[in-house]
Amino acid sequence: MDFQSCFPVWNQLTAAQQELINGTLLTRKVTKGTMVHNGNLECTGLLVVKTGQLRSYILSEEGREITIYRMFDMDLCVLSASCIIRSIQFEIMIEAEKDTELWIIPPGVYKKIMEESAPVANYTNELMATHFSDVMWLMEQIMWKSMDKRVAAFLLEECAIEGTNKLKITHEVIANHLGTHREVVTRMLRYFQSDGLIALSRGTVEILNEEKLEAL
Amino acid sequence: MDFQSCFPVWNQLTAAQQELINGTLLTRKVTKGTMVHNGNLECTGLLVVKTGQLRSYILSEEGREITIYRMFDMDLCVLSASCIIRSIQFEIMIEAEKDTELWIIPPGVYKKIMEESAPVANYTNELMATHFSDVMWLMEQIMWKSMDKRVAAFLLEECAIEGTNKLKITHEVIANHLGTHREVVTRMLRYFQSDGLIALSRGTVEILNEEKLEAL
Repeated sequence: MDFQSCFPVWNQLTAAQQELINGTLLTRKVTKGTMVHNGNLECTGLLVVKTGQLRSYILSEEGREITIYRMFDMDLCVLSASCIIRSIQFEIMIEAEKDTELWIIPPGVYKKIMEESAPVANYTNELMATHFSDVMWLMEQIMWKSMDKRVAAFLLEECAIEGTNKLKITHEVIANHLGTHREVVTRMLRYFQSDGLIALSRGTVEILNEEKLEAL
Repeated sequence: MDFQSCFPVWNQLTAAQQELINGTLLTRKVTKGTMVHNGNLECTGLLVVKTGQLRSYILSEEGREITIYRMFDMDLCVLSASCIIRSIQFEIMIEAEKDTELWIIPPGVYKKIMEESAPVANYTNELMATHFSDVMWLMEQIMWKSMDKRVAAFLLEECAIEGTNKLKITHEVIANHLGTHREVVTRMLRYFQSDGLIALSRGTVEILNEEKLEAL
């Protein structure tokens, strides 16, 4: 797989723009747990996931986290280039959830092309709208859904991502994804266990009754 | 005040594009309480507030509301034209909070110009990023701030908007803005009153101690 096939407006670029990207495109391999982007401390550029998995999250002053969206193979991220869009007034963090290979278009290069090219600007718009939609979905979850539904939805999503019903994950990690405390998650998981929906053992959560979890 | 001075990229349009907008621009006067945009039921177009005040909010299945952002004189709204950006996968409602005069660029016209013009596409990006930042700020409030701080922040914001310390507002309306129940707001306001921060009477909330509210 090459970069060009991950960038849907490639064929609408001029030859000079294609050359500029080809000449400046960075590739980066990061191991699981690496911080790929750290708020407004840096302007990373436009990220494209070649293979792997990234997690974007926000951080409270007290260090609590909440996952905003995830990125998989061939996904693009424009918020890591937030410095090139003046009106983005918030900070996100991005970490690798798996060993990941990335392409990065440097921010100055992307900004120049976006300013010249209506197709690239409109594509950037669509990317931002996708992130925005993820956040709106999350906010609706937080506002209107109780924690049992959020934990159930998270477990089912993880199973789908990992392709297994036996998740290697700690209660702390689940709490960070959902922006709550470990104790809240532990209480909920024990409640699910007593209902026969899941089985808990050290560092793993096994889904026993997917239908009942989905019904939640 | 004319439309052209509210649309910062006007001078970067071609003569044909300017003519197209001038020939299709709608003006609309709505009274306080009017629904200006109703989710994905309609594609209203790009809104520009000439004078007045609009409120954008989301609605849960059970009819609970939460205010996303407000728009004042010369503010633009692109989410009311969400049909022209495919990746926007959420619905917002917009109502007039005061008698309001609007300009509306029809969605088809705006879409055509945005596709042709890099400046307009990039400007649309900035508009969306502004709305996005409002939502991220709101989410941080919801996630990390307790309700006393949110009610205090809301009261101070209202005073600033209305230019008075004596607000004509019901507990129900405050609850809708904050996405909570009337009872929660009433409890918080009585607590503020007992602390001497505010005075309550039928349909009004008077701020007595602005400094202490700000300190919250």
